[in-house]
Formats: sequence, structure tokens, C-alpha cells
Amino acid sequence: MLQLYFSPMACSLASRIALTEAGLDARYHLVHLRTKTVADDDSDFRGVSPKGAVPVLVLENGDRLTESAAVLQYIADAKPEAGLAPRIGDPDRYRLHEWLSFIGAEIHKAFLFPTFWYKDDGSLAKPRARITQTLAVPSAHLADREFLVGDRFTVADAHLTWALLLLRPAGVDIAQWPSLSAYLARMQARPSVRDAIATEMELRKTVPANPA
Amino acid sequence: MLQLYFSPMACSLASRIALTEAGLDARYHLVHLRTKTVADDDSDFRGVSPKGAVPVLVLENGDRLTESAAVLQYIADAKPEAGLAPRIGDPDRYRLHEWLSFIGAEIHKAFLFPTFWYKDDGSLAKPRARITQTLAVPSAHLADREFLVGDRFTVADAHLTWALLLLRPAGVDIAQWPSLSAYLARMQARPSVRDAIATEMELRKTVPANPA
Ligand SMILES: N[C@@H](CCC(=O)N[C@@H](CS)C(=O)NCC(=O)O)C(=O)O
Ligand SMILES: N[C@@H](CCC(=O)N[C@@H](CS)C(=O)NCC(=O)O)C(=O)O
Repeated sequence: MLQLYFSPMACSLASRIALTEAGLDARYHLVHLRTKTVADDDSDFRGVSPKGAVPVLVLENGDRLTESAAVLQYIADAKPEAGLAPRIGDPDRYRLHEWLSFIGAEIHKAFLFPTFWYKDDGSLAKPRARITQTLAVPSAHLADREFLVGDRFTVADAHLTWALLLLRPAGVDIAQWPSLSAYLARMQARPSVRDAIATEMELRKTVPANPA
Repeated sequence: MLQLYFSPMACSLASRIALTEAGLDARYHLVHLRTKTVADDDSDFRGVSPKGAVPVLVLENGDRLTESAAVLQYIADAKPEAGLAPRIGDPDRYRLHEWLSFIGAEIHKAFLFPTFWYKDDGSLAKPRARITQTLAVPSAHLADREFLVGDRFTVADAHLTWALLLLRPAGVDIAQWPSLSAYLARMQARPSVRDAIATEMELRKTVPANPA
């Protein structure tokens, strides 16, 4: 069985949503990111992954895979009939790569990560100034589309849904992009997303905050 | 013919290296990143890509693909016999995704981008403090390996080579990671890398600096 190391409402939420959409059973291990410990047994999370970051997916053969873009594609390809990624050979597969990179680099690492992990000593002014221009990209794309890639839900939507959910705690009002608000509302109506949020918000009450 | 929008020594260098390794002809268009203009005709680069960032690959059918992870995989898959990416279905393909994400998010967006694009008003202390821990990951991986993925050069090596080349201008001494210095020296001995650097360093004399 697959195993996912996650932290409540961290970027690993996207991998949980993808596992649920794929109908794949998995064992979930909660990680305390600030102390880098695994809640199961208080062991050192760096023993699981030296990066010390979630998500980490443990494959059936015991190998460990990190990085949301890789983990999400692994999950999608493990259950091709769920249609969570365009098939290999479909030109849309490169659009999936493009969105996963954009969300992981431009929204997550350039904006959400510093917002939640760096104390604001004035150092966040530039990342914050840039997020408006960054979010204009998915906003324009989703003005007349239901999903990021093709005409169905893919793991790129799981990834973006997580990132958009964190805008409010990051102090950014999504209402300024009506197409993104409408998209997020559609995504939150999916049982996989609703259940993932309910589960992780509940767990979050039990752990110190570490949202991105 | 493929077309690549690039800026000298920017992250698009990796795509140029990949095109050369693949033996693919391409037309190269120089972009002035600060003014967002295409050097060919002074036209607005945002007309090519609203993101205003390189690389942009124009496909044979005219479609435009952005994001290094997507562009690099497109190039690799366009010439499978060059072996620049593990074949689809090979478990190593997920290692390629993992490295492309790590380089694009953790090295590029979390460190190089702010270093070169944000004026240092004290805001760079945290990204700079973090880069040592970030580079420990490829350093450990490459201690006993020649390449990032499998036993041959892939587009992930093109990506990492670019990122490591920028450490010195970013004020970080690569000598503190002997396995990374040795790796970079090996990569720089490849004709594709040597030629790409020679070409772009020459072009760089003609444009204002905009390195990451
Ligand atoms: N590039 C990685 C980023 C992973 C990441 O930053 N995870 C955060 C939670 S959202 C984390 O675990 N941070 C703890 C740390 O970096 O120390 C990915 O896309 O998966
Ligand atoms: N996530 C993108 C990043 C692209 C990027 O940041 N490109 C830089 C040059 S290395 C750029 O064009 N910056 C200009 C800008 O963002 O305004 C990728 O991996 O391709």
C-alpha cells in the first residue's frame, strides 16, 4: 500500500486529494514540520527524507518519492482509468508539466513558502508585490475553462486548489480574481476536496501551525 | 522548426543545452527581460507569453510552451533516441520529475530568482541562509553518481548545470560542496554546455544584465 507523509493543510493536501480521486488506499503519516518529527512514534522525519519536507510518498517497493509534481504524477499514473493526468503521448501532458511547475515554483516557492516560513521583517514585500501578476496567469486561463488542463479534473487542479486555499491565511483576497474564486468554489464542491480539508482541518487542531 | 525565446545566461540556457544535446535545430530569439522586449524587432515579449519570462518554446504547430520543466521534457521526448529523459514507463521518469521540480522550485525560485531580481534591502538573508541546506541534497546524491538520474546525461543535468553556474555570480562558493564542483566541471567539459555558455556569454556583452 502507498504511504503518504503529510502535514495538515501543507502542500501534501494536493497528494491526499489525488489519492482520493484515484480511489487509492494509502497509509497517512502526520509530520510535525517545525520539529521534523513523525507523529506516529516521534521519530526523526529526516530519516524518511533528508529534505525534511512533505509530501513524501512511499512506493510499494519502499522507494521514497518527494516533490509534489513527481508525487502527483505518480499517483495519477498509478490509476490511469481515473484520468487524473493526460495519457503519455497526449500533447496535453506537457500542459500538465507546465502547470505543476508554475504552481510549485511561482505560487508556492516564490510566495506561499516565504509568507508562512519567514518572519516578516520587511522581507516579504517583494514576493507579496509579485503575487498579483503571478495569479493573473491562472485567472486568465480559467476565465473560460472549468479545469486547468483539458476538460477534466487532473492533479494540476489538486495542486492549484491547495495553493488557492492558502491565499486567505496568506492575507491575499481571492475575490479580486472572480474566475479563481469561482474555480475554487467548484473544486471545494468535489467530495475529494471537501473530505481532505475536513480531515486535515480537524488534525490541525492537534498540531502547531505550519501551513505551507 | 522549434523556436526558443531566451535571455543570455538565464534559465533558458538549460533548454539551449538540451536542444544541442538532442541535435535539434531551432531558431533562437533573444529577449530583454527588464524591458520585456524581443531583440529581433523590439516587439512586446508579453505578446509571446503573458508570463514575460523565458524560456518559451514555440512548437512546430505554433503552440507556446513555458516552464523549464515542461520545455525540457518536450525537447527530450522530441528526440527519444538521444536518451535525454528516461522513457515513459521507466520508474526513473519520476526521478526526473523530482529533480526538475527541486531545481525549478528550491534552487531557482527560492534562491536564485530573489538574489538577482530583488534589491537587497535585507530581504535576502533568509533565502541565502537556506541555500546551504538546499544544496546539500544534490551534493549528497552526486557524491557517488555521475549524473542526476540513471547513468546518463538527462535534461535534469542541463537544468542543474545552469543553476550551479549561477552560484558564483550569486555570491555562493561552490567549493564547499566538492561533489557539486566536480559535477559542474564534468558538465562544463561537454561540448553542448561549453558551446551554450560561449554563445550566451558573448551575447550577454550586448544586453543589460538579467541573469536569473
Ligand atoms: N518543492 C516541494 C516543496 C515542499 C515543501 O516546501 N513542503 C513544505 C510544506 S508545504 C514543507 O514541508 N516545509 C518544511 C521545510 O521546508 O522545512 C514540493 O513541491 O513538494
Ligand atoms: N518557473 C519558470 C521560471 C522562469 C523564470 O523565472 N525565468 C526568468 C529568467 S531565469 C525570467 O524570465 N524572469 C523575468 C521575469 O520573471 O520577469 C521556469 O522554470 O521556467
